[in-house]
Amino acid sequence: RPKRALDCPFCPGNEDLTPPEIMRIGSSRSWQIRVVPNRFPILGDGEQYTEDGLYKSRSGKGFHDIVIETPIHDQHITEFSADEMNLVIDIYQTLMSKRNKTPGVRYTLIFKNYGRRAGASLKHSHSQVIAMPILPRRVREEIDSSRRYYQRHKSCIFCRIIAEEIKRKERIVVDNDHFIGFVPYAARIPFEVWIIPKRHRGYFTAITTEERHALARILLSVLRRTRIVLEDPPFNFFIHTGPSHLDVNRYYHYHLVIMPVTSILGGFELGSGFYVNQSSAEVDARMLREVG
Amino acid sequence: RPKRALDCPFCPGNEDLTPPEIMRIGSSRSWQIRVVPNRFPILGDGEQYTEDGLYKSRSGKGFHDIVIETPIHDQHITEFSADEMNLVIDIYQTLMSKRNKTPGVRYTLIFKNYGRRAGASLKHSHSQVIAMPILPRRVREEIDSSRRYYQRHKSCIFCRIIAEEIKRKERIVVDNDHFIGFVPYAARIPFEVWIIPKRHRGYFTAITTEERHALARILLSVLRRTRIVLEDPPFNFFIHTGPSHLDVNRYYHYHLVIMPVTSILGGFELGSGFYVNQSSAEVDARMLREVG
Repeated sequence: RPKRALDCPFCPGNEDLTPPEIMRIGSSRSWQIRVVPNRFPILGDGEQYTEDGLYKSRSGKGFHDIVIETPIHDQHITEFSADEMNLVIDIYQTLMSKRNKTPGVRYTLIFKNYGRRAGASLKHSHSQVIAMPILPRRVREEIDSSRRYYQRHKSCIFCRIIAEEIKRKERIVVDNDHFIGFVPYAARIPFEVWIIPKRHRGYFTAITTEERHALARILLSVLRRTRIVLEDPPFNFFIHTGPSHLDVNRYYHYHLVIMPVTSILGGFELGSGFYVNQSSAEVDARMLREVG
Repeated sequence: RPKRALDCPFCPGNEDLTPPEIMRIGSSRSWQIRVVPNRFPILGDGEQYTEDGLYKSRSGKGFHDIVIETPIHDQHITEFSADEMNLVIDIYQTLMSKRNKTPGVRYTLIFKNYGRRAGASLKHSHSQVIAMPILPRRVREEIDSSRRYYQRHKSCIFCRIIAEEIKRKERIVVDNDHFIGFVPYAARIPFEVWIIPKRHRGYFTAITTEERHALARILLSVLRRTRIVLEDPPFNFFIHTGPSHLDVNRYYHYHLVIMPVTSILGGFELGSGFYVNQSSAEVDARMLREVG
């Protein structure tokens, strides 16, 4: 297993293959984590607005950064120590806070693709941070729905879900003082797992040091269990959080969603927007729980 | 190339491997098309409603049928004659009309998966018809949006798109008297193609004989072009139409959407609900146009 790869732009010694560094943990010769702009960003400097007949378009102004999570070429994220994972989450928080302060940024999405079938083109462990000028559709839907729930019931839907799951136990994979990791009721795909703060927390950027360590531990635990049960599957994860320009503190919890690549979207899913999940959340959760 | 496969449940001679036939074109010994219930339906007879703590669930009541489009095991859909394709569309129309009349059915979704990576588990050419008790989320979004457009502009958004595309020509792949096939502006994935009636038509079930023949021809033409340009890609198609319990005739056009499997959804798409399409609709359309 190669610790370094000659042609990998994320390996030590190849720092000149990436654009200039934005952040770093460690010294420039012996770094632990680097943040660099993506060489092929999906968002850039442009702020052009065009009306082309019926259609209106806006060029994507924003940032597309890469978090190189480890100097070791072949280190799987589940092989990170809790301290190493804590540093990655620390970088997420710092970078998201920085990007959120940039004028024009409406939302910063942090996500990871692992494995080719999950969209990763490079093997060296990394995640991506995209700061964009509009609120993503999925986040807007969650915020709108939870706001409506709050208006009707005078309570936070996420707090209620957490209480329900803790009472029922059967969909919980693992929990600690600050977070639960569970397979959601009506999960979209087999082995989908949500990691969510137990206490009412709208914004990932407001995470405390203690919470950050707890998140690192539970994320490692869920990813390790998933790796064992599904035999090193490709997977994606992403963080959904309150956007800095809205006050969602009363009715929203930030959360991290892990989606292993366990199914193929067919014409039914594409045409309807519904997901067929042949698995049972309770059985999936038990399998993940029992390999602990 | 095998015309028949011994273990294929859709091949002539193996009719006893499927549940009893619902419809047929041709004699029972020498059929052209058969419609049978799916042996593994995603919807069934149940109509149970449960409240499980916080969560409410309804078991799926509906129908899940298979259209076996040809008796020939290895016939690719692009090898159908225009008359054969016309019969398939005829069956779609008849079956959708039948299912729409069943009490409790709110929407009938017709779709095809071709190739394993598009979700097809059997090679023998077939499509699927799912009649369900709720309006699919994607269809509801289209209807809501086009209704709002109509209220604001007093015109049908689909009619305006068609006029715009015909004027511009550059995104059109092929057209005939009744339909245009085009790569939509801001297509979600490379080589996505919409086939849409030129004249104002809300409901697929109201298609005339002449229109049906025209749809068969344009669908074959688009699929053949896609097969050549993308070298026999896996693909999905589905039909979006007005639901029979709503009157959408003023502001909606039924349409058929073809989505070849040309990209992988990663954490960005899953987390945001936005699609990154690195291709250009105009270039995709020209490539499909030029192989004609």
